[in-house]
Parts: sequence; structure tokens; C-alpha cells
Amino acid sequence: MPPITLTTDFHHGSTYVAAMKAVILTINPAATIVDVTHDVPPQDVRRGARVLDEVTALFPADTIHVAVIDPGVGTDRGIVYVRIGRQQYVCPDNGLLALMARRTPPSQIIRLTEPGYWLQPVSATFHGRDIMAPVAARLSLGLEPSLLGETQAGLLMLDWPEPTQSPGRIEGRIEEIDSFGNLISNISELLLAEVPHDHRTTVETCGRKVQGIVRTYGERSPGELVALVGSSGWLELAVVNGNAADDLAAMVGDAVTVTW
Amino acid sequence: MPPITLTTDFHHGSTYVAAMKAVILTINPAATIVDVTHDVPPQDVRRGARVLDEVTALFPADTIHVAVIDPGVGTDRGIVYVRIGRQQYVCPDNGLLALMARRTPPSQIIRLTEPGYWLQPVSATFHGRDIMAPVAARLSLGLEPSLLGETQAGLLMLDWPEPTQSPGRIEGRIEEIDSFGNLISNISELLLAEVPHDHRTTVETCGRKVQGIVRTYGERSPGELVALVGSSGWLELAVVNGNAADDLAAMVGDAVTVTW
Amino acid sequence: MPPITLTTDFHHGSTYVAAMKAVILTINPAATIVDVTHDVPPQDVRRGARVLDEVTALFPADTIHVAVIDPGVGTDRGIVYVRIGRQQYVCPDNGLLALMARRTPPSQIIRLTEPGYWLQPVSATFHGRDIMAPVAARLSLGLEPSLLGETQAGLLMLDWPEPTQSPGRIEGRIEEIDSFGNLISNISELLLAEVPHDHRTTVETCGRKVQGIVRTYGERSPGELVALVGSSGWLELAVVNGNAADDLAAMVGDAVTVTW
Repeated sequence: MPPITLTTDFHHGSTYVAAMKAVILTINPAATIVDVTHDVPPQDVRRGARVLDEVTALFPADTIHVAVIDPGVGTDRGIVYVRIGRQQYVCPDNGLLALMARRTPPSQIIRLTEPGYWLQPVSATFHGRDIMAPVAARLSLGLEPSLLGETQAGLLMLDWPEPTQSPGRIEGRIEEIDSFGNLISNISELLLAEVPHDHRTTVETCGRKVQGIVRTYGERSPGELVALVGSSGWLELAVVNGNAADDLAAMVGDAVTVTW
Repeated sequence: MPPITLTTDFHHGSTYVAAMKAVILTINPAATIVDVTHDVPPQDVRRGARVLDEVTALFPADTIHVAVIDPGVGTDRGIVYVRIGRQQYVCPDNGLLALMARRTPPSQIIRLTEPGYWLQPVSATFHGRDIMAPVAARLSLGLEPSLLGETQAGLLMLDWPEPTQSPGRIEGRIEEIDSFGNLISNISELLLAEVPHDHRTTVETCGRKVQGIVRTYGERSPGELVALVGSSGWLELAVVNGNAADDLAAMVGDAVTVTW
Repeated sequence: MPPITLTTDFHHGSTYVAAMKAVILTINPAATIVDVTHDVPPQDVRRGARVLDEVTALFPADTIHVAVIDPGVGTDRGIVYVRIGRQQYVCPDNGLLALMARRTPPSQIIRLTEPGYWLQPVSATFHGRDIMAPVAARLSLGLEPSLLGETQAGLLMLDWPEPTQSPGRIEGRIEEIDSFGNLISNISELLLAEVPHDHRTTVETCGRKVQGIVRTYGERSPGELVALVGSSGWLELAVVNGNAADDLAAMVGDAVTVTW
């Protein structure tokens, strides 16, 4: 039986999360439920898309990922079942899957239109509890996705700023700051494949420069700023045993430049 | 096997929560444990009562809800097993069940007096770990509740401020602020059944007025203040894609008035 | 099948936690995973050691405790499998087990050197996901620990400040502040066995004195400062229904003195 994961902007400790789990366990008492995170900033669909992109591919095949960052709840935005690669998703069609779908086109998209699989009555403001949770629980019990509604051709897509490349230079930006204060850029290790990792290369952000790209934090002394490729494959800047975001007053969107 | 839920004021990340789960899993390795929330403000029994009232009825029949907001730990306040409707509760008898019991009288109340079902030795300051967790674990394995102690006639009750009604007017108050900053009042949808939801009705709080009660956030523009009935059946005020509590400097206890 | 627990400094809501759970469930879909805490302060190995010491012994026999507070990730610090008493641990060999191992010498220490049990490729910065999670999942399925690598003689140990004793006097320090603001010292109940608990004894910290050691918070009035032995067996100072850390501006490391 595939696990169900939950990704929301409800905030840790919110009883809205417990409400969704209650609905899932009522339908499937044996469900395995995993919290991905509930700390996506409120209504931040782009951040939700990055979370799903970063984590969900690691889960077992056929895992059902429910994502509720849903500023359009109760309007005519659709709710979709989507299969991308070996993973399954249930979420509003508002761009949450845009980052993943750009890389791997979905093999199945169903717009949820069959109310027989939902909690009744459906509220106007909490479709995570009333539509997505019961649908995920039924999928985990083996419900055939095509019964959930009508096939849909594509998903709502969003644009992300892409790094620009020129000879000897890549310009990107800080895309995320993790809980250690590490500054994670949108420059992937693929873009860095031809770039020397030694002192010939300079990484710059927020007016601070680093020579070379190290392999891990421990290669430099505590307090030193380093550039490295992080565990998800993105170039990041970090302060060894410290907090780069605090030290550099860095924010998401700040420029990151690699020159060599 | 019914799941066990945990509701406490230990704060997320507290190792006290892990201690309770350790005790439960030692007695019942197959237990399904669900966190409702650990972020009830310290010693805030009323807030705990609201959490239980809002969420627990959604769980599968016979779920065992353990609630540890327990400022009287180690004094002569009792600990009780209570059945209300289809749900079971294990908690201090300090008002945590008052909101639910007022609506649905308990069908069984047992005061926990049989130490044979507890962890030994029982500490003076952590009955959640030493009494409530082991009792819940044993209940999940099928222990007959009447073995836990003596039947008790009633529960300690608390009063809640109720909305007042007069022709063309309802006066209530903000009872809770959720993680989105939505202001959730104590005015239920039942009270609003005869109230027009269009522009004839005015909802006022913190010096701000809204005309009409909408169905969902998305019916108005981002940044606009709206009144609507939220997913738990209470009148709430919200800023579309924003934070009403911040915008209005609103606090629990502030008046909410509906006139028409 | 023994449960797996997770203790990290990733911060609640971090997707790094979800990544570890994804890896575990991919290898063992039936794994029971319990979060101990993810709110150990970044790189604070000593605090991690205290968490493990405080909570893990309560878990069922053979539970596998994974601890990832790992400032040395990617350097030559080892990663170890350790059995202490009835519990099993998988963590960096950086002092995380020092507090427990001082009391109960490990009965088995294996340095993880067999990459066949790891996720491939192993990143340089996230061994929690790539080495510790898959090893824990395989142990939960019954893998023989000795296959993981070579036996190692001892663990990296750290020193902790110990209370000093003289006739009629014990001097210790605040070792931890819990989520209620209770000040938990390093003075154990064993040290207090011969000390009178009545008014003859004075407990002092941060310039404030308390007469006597009470059994539980409820023996004094709200707002009053009390000294008592907490649920983990340490002398603590607490404000009844209040927050001692705020009231006394107390910090970890402040002196605690018992005189009689």
C-alpha cells in the first residue's frame, strides 16, 4: 500500500493538518501518512512547487503526494490527480507541479469532478480536508485514478527565473534559504560541469566573494564562507558551522554570480 | 485497532512528546499515533478544549484522544477516561472536555484510580507519560475502560462567553486566530441561518466593517477584508491572501458584531 | 520490527527530514518512524547528546535511533552503529553518544564502512539521507549489524561540567531550558538523596532563592518560583503556571546552588 505525504502552508501545529489525517484514517485505517512540511509560507505556490520538486522523487514508487497550498480554494481553479514518473500527486492545478512537469511531462492528468469520492458536504474553504484527503485515501486503497474525473490535457504552468550563461560567467539567484541559513541558488551542478572547482573560479553574492567550490563544509574553518554543490544538486553558499543568511543579510532573489 | 491522538502544550519539538510515544510503542508496538497539535499555549486549558472540539469528531470511531494540558499535575485533580459520542478521551478532569460535553453529554466517565495500568514509578510532574500514555496504549489493545477505575458522575465544566442575539443584531467575539491570521469568531453558522448573506448585512470587528458574507476567499480581490463561514462552521474574518490579525491588530476576545 | 527514531538539527518543517523518511520507507515500507525532535540547535552536538540520553531509553527494546547533528559531514569523522543497553544507535562519532556511554558502556561499536548498504551516489553534505537512513532501514529489516563495517574500540567522548559537592552545599548549573521555561539543572536526584527537602534547604539561581524542594508545581501558587525534581530526575526551578527562564532572565550555564 503506497504511503500518503502531506505538504501544506497550514503551519506546524495547525489543527487543519490533523483534520486531513483524521479523514484519511477514517477511510483507510492502515494508511502510512508522512508530513513533508507544513511550513510553506502562506499561499506561496512557488515555494510549494520547489518543495515537491526537491523531495517527492525520493519516495517509494506510487506514493501519493497531497499538496495544499491553495489560495484559489472555492473558485473555479481545478483540483487534479497527476502521475509524473513513478509518483502520484493530488493538488490544486495552480502551478504546484509546474517545476516537476517542466522536466518530466505528466503521464496522466485527471481533473477531479466525481463528488462521490469526496467528503460531503464539501466546504467552500477547505478542499484539502473535503476533497484531496478522501481522494488520496481511496487511491491508497487501490482506486483506479481514471474514475476520479475527466482527463485533462495539461497543467497550469509558472515561469521560474533561469540562470544566464556567457563565456566564463553564470548569473543566477538565491532561490531558497534552508534552516541552517545556507543560500541555495538556482544554478544546478549540470551547469557547473565544465567550470573549474579550484581557485580560478569566483562565486559572488551580496557583495561577498569566495574562491573555489569545495566538496563539503568541513574543508574550511568555522565561520568561513564557502561555495559548494549541496545535497539536492544546487550551488549553495554556506558559512561553516554558521548562518550565511544572517551574516550576509541575504534574501531569496539576490543575485549569485560564478566567474572563471 | 483504533488510533491514538496526542494534543499537548509541550510545544513542537519537545522531547516530552517523544517520551509519550516511546511509552505507547513499548506497550503497543503496532499503535498508530497521530499528533493533533503540541502548540496549545502553556496551561491554556480553554484553547485545548477548543482544539479537541474542532478536530476530534473527524477521527475514526473509537479513536483514543490523549490531551495533556495539565497545570494541576500532581495535585488532587483527577485524570479521566471519557466516551463522548463515538470518540474516547484520556485527559485531566480540568475542563478540557467541557466544550464537547456541553453539546454531547458523555456516555461514560471513569476516574483513573487503578495504578496497575500505569508506568511505575509515577512521577509527580509528568502524568502524560506515566499515566495517560500507558492507559491509552492499553485501551488501543482492547482493555475494557471500566477496569481503569471508578465511574464518576460528571466532569469539571468551564463557561465560555456566548454570543448575544437581538432583532437584527448578533454580538460575539474572536475566539481564535488561525495560522493564516484568520479571525475565527464564536458565532456559528446555525446562528446565521436566518441572516441575509448579501450587502444588507454588516460584519464589524476592530473598527472595520464588511458588507455581506461571502462563500470563499477567492470571491474578493487579494488584500480585501471578507466575512465568511469557515470550514469548521464559525463566522470568520479574513484578508484574501493576507493576514487579517496583522492588518487589524486583532486579538482573541475582540468583539465581532453582525447587523442587518 | 523495531521502530526507527529521528533526532536532528534540521529544524521542524525542514524537507531534509522528509528526505530521510522517504529513503527509509523505500527500503522498508512497513517501518515505524518516530520523530524525537528536529529542533536541536544547529551543530549543537552536546544538546543532541542530552536529548538522546533523556528520551531514548524509554523506547521499546532494539529501537534504532538515528541522530544527525553532524557539523563534520564529509570530513573523516566516522559514522557508527552502537548498541548501548537495549537500544541501538546510528550517528556520527562526534560525541552524540558520550553522555550515555559514560554511564553504560556500549556493548557493540561498528564503524560504517560498507558502502553496499548506503544510497548511491553518496553526497558530501547529507550523510543522514545517504548513509544513516538506509542503514537504519536495513537494520529494522533484520540486517546483522556486524556486516556494516569494522568493530571499533571506543567512541569520541566529550566532557560535561559536573556538579561539585562539599558539606552542606552542591554547586551545579542550568543545563537546559524546556518549552515551559523550566530551568533544568545538572544536579540529579541521586545527589539530593541525603539533602533535606524542607525549609532547611535553599536553592539559588540568578540571584533568586527558594526554600525547600517541592514534589510538584501545584503545591505552590501561580507565579511562585519553586524547586523540584523533574520528570527526568534532575533538579529544576520553575514558576508555577509561568515561565522561569523569562522571569529570571536565566540562561544555560547559569549557576545553581543548593545549600542546607
